[in-house]
Amino acid sequence: MNSLPTACIIVIGNEILSGRTEDKNINFIAKRCDKIGINLSEVRIIPDDHKIIQGMVIECHNKFDYVFTTGGIGPTHDDITTECIAKAFNVKIEINQEALIRLKTHYKKLKVELNESRLKMAKIPVDAELIDNPVSSAPGFIIKNVYVLPGVPKILQAMFFGLEDKICGINNMLSKNIIVHSAEGEIADFLTDIQNKYNEVSIGSYPYFRPPDVGTNIVLRSLDINLINKTSIAIITKLKENEIQFEEN
Amino acid sequence: MNSLPTACIIVIGNEILSGRTEDKNINFIAKRCDKIGINLSEVRIIPDDHKIIQGMVIECHNKFDYVFTTGGIGPTHDDITTECIAKAFNVKIEINQEALIRLKTHYKKLKVELNESRLKMAKIPVDAELIDNPVSSAPGFIIKNVYVLPGVPKILQAMFFGLEDKICGINNMLSKNIIVHSAEGEIADFLTDIQNKYNEVSIGSYPYFRPPDVGTNIVLRSLDINLINKTSIAIITKLKENEIQFEEN
Repeated sequence: MNSLPTACIIVIGNEILSGRTEDKNINFIAKRCDKIGINLSEVRIIPDDHKIIQGMVIECHNKFDYVFTTGGIGPTHDDITTECIAKAFNVKIEINQEALIRLKTHYKKLKVELNESRLKMAKIPVDAELIDNPVSSAPGFIIKNVYVLPGVPKILQAMFFGLEDKICGINNMLSKNIIVHSAEGEIADFLTDIQNKYNEVSIGSYPYFRPPDVGTNIVLRSLDINLINKTSIAIITKLKENEIQFEEN
Repeated sequence: MNSLPTACIIVIGNEILSGRTEDKNINFIAKRCDKIGINLSEVRIIPDDHKIIQGMVIECHNKFDYVFTTGGIGPTHDDITTECIAKAFNVKIEINQEALIRLKTHYKKLKVELNESRLKMAKIPVDAELIDNPVSSAPGFIIKNVYVLPGVPKILQAMFFGLEDKICGINNMLSKNIIVHSAEGEIADFLTDIQNKYNEVSIGSYPYFRPPDVGTNIVLRSLDINLINKTSIAIITKLKENEIQFEEN
């Protein structure tokens, strides 16, 4: 895992912390990172607060290879992400001409006024690179290693897919699942031994509990398919010895 | 908001960061905190890593009134939360006699062996208080201001409800929603003015985007119902002036 670039998501939004909105972006970004070979190392959910956002952006910018922020780049008073990130990096915000053209075109098509609030979405830190928004035109942006994305899941997803070419993960993290129809406590002993033996494979053990069905998903992850196969054979041998039912997948 | 006690959730689990599992506990705990009057101030999702867990527990223990950890207290090798929290606070782990009785009773009923792996779930930091688990018996625990809970949502939920009496939030955070059938950009200008005028009410503005329906939820939150009502009237007056459709709720 150590050879993969690291990433952190900063979810910005009081609505997530109050429980009013359930976050849908963390799992999406986590899956995409896994797919393109980036090690999502941490997620932080923080409130719409100037000082907290600025501090967190700098901390994560220094600590991880990639930082993805979600939320707070819309037109209203509580959308303060852009302003905070500019302050964090001590750069100015200005009307980005390319962003302005995109917004003008979009709102003209919709026959909706590009009022002062909406114009706010064209204000981008100087020298930041735009992230295309194929859904509602208002762009995100990249500043240093920080990728600034919106909070609305459908828009974020469209923007993230377009972004993946710019992000260079290592595209070869491999995994294998074994679904065991038995509680975690039945298999924990030999799983520990096998993990100690094959320490270059990450063995995850995830209980599921849907009474009366109780079981465990074992997930093997590594950059090396041979190691995954060896580990898998060691586990399956033990499952058979103990007459525990399982499925490979 | 400042008068409410603060809380942080630490979600411990590689499976959430890899995207394999979608977290279901953050939103549940967030809603319960809101209900019982605790200000959930931050959430952190971190990997199953000794150093990271220990560091994060101490940092959050110092920073927030309540810390809730989820995940990593089961029987397998990757369940390291208990051990890390004990190390963080420099206390020993021992077989807790009460936890042992509960596990023995539970597994006897199930006619399942209480093997060495399962016994691990009776190992609790010395002097920690147990958190009852009405579903699968293995308890969580409280050490200082840290509440250690499991990752399986149904079990966590049952345990959290039982825990709420021990947590003393202020049970009177009030809120009011206004659903506006118009994009955020239409209302942002006057919303900013109203927020500046009523700065003791937190006004959240949350766009929704379900084409062709586009709109905004406005959420007013305060400890004072009179202030919420005044703010609400100010917003509704502006919505009517601008002939924007809305619903109160």
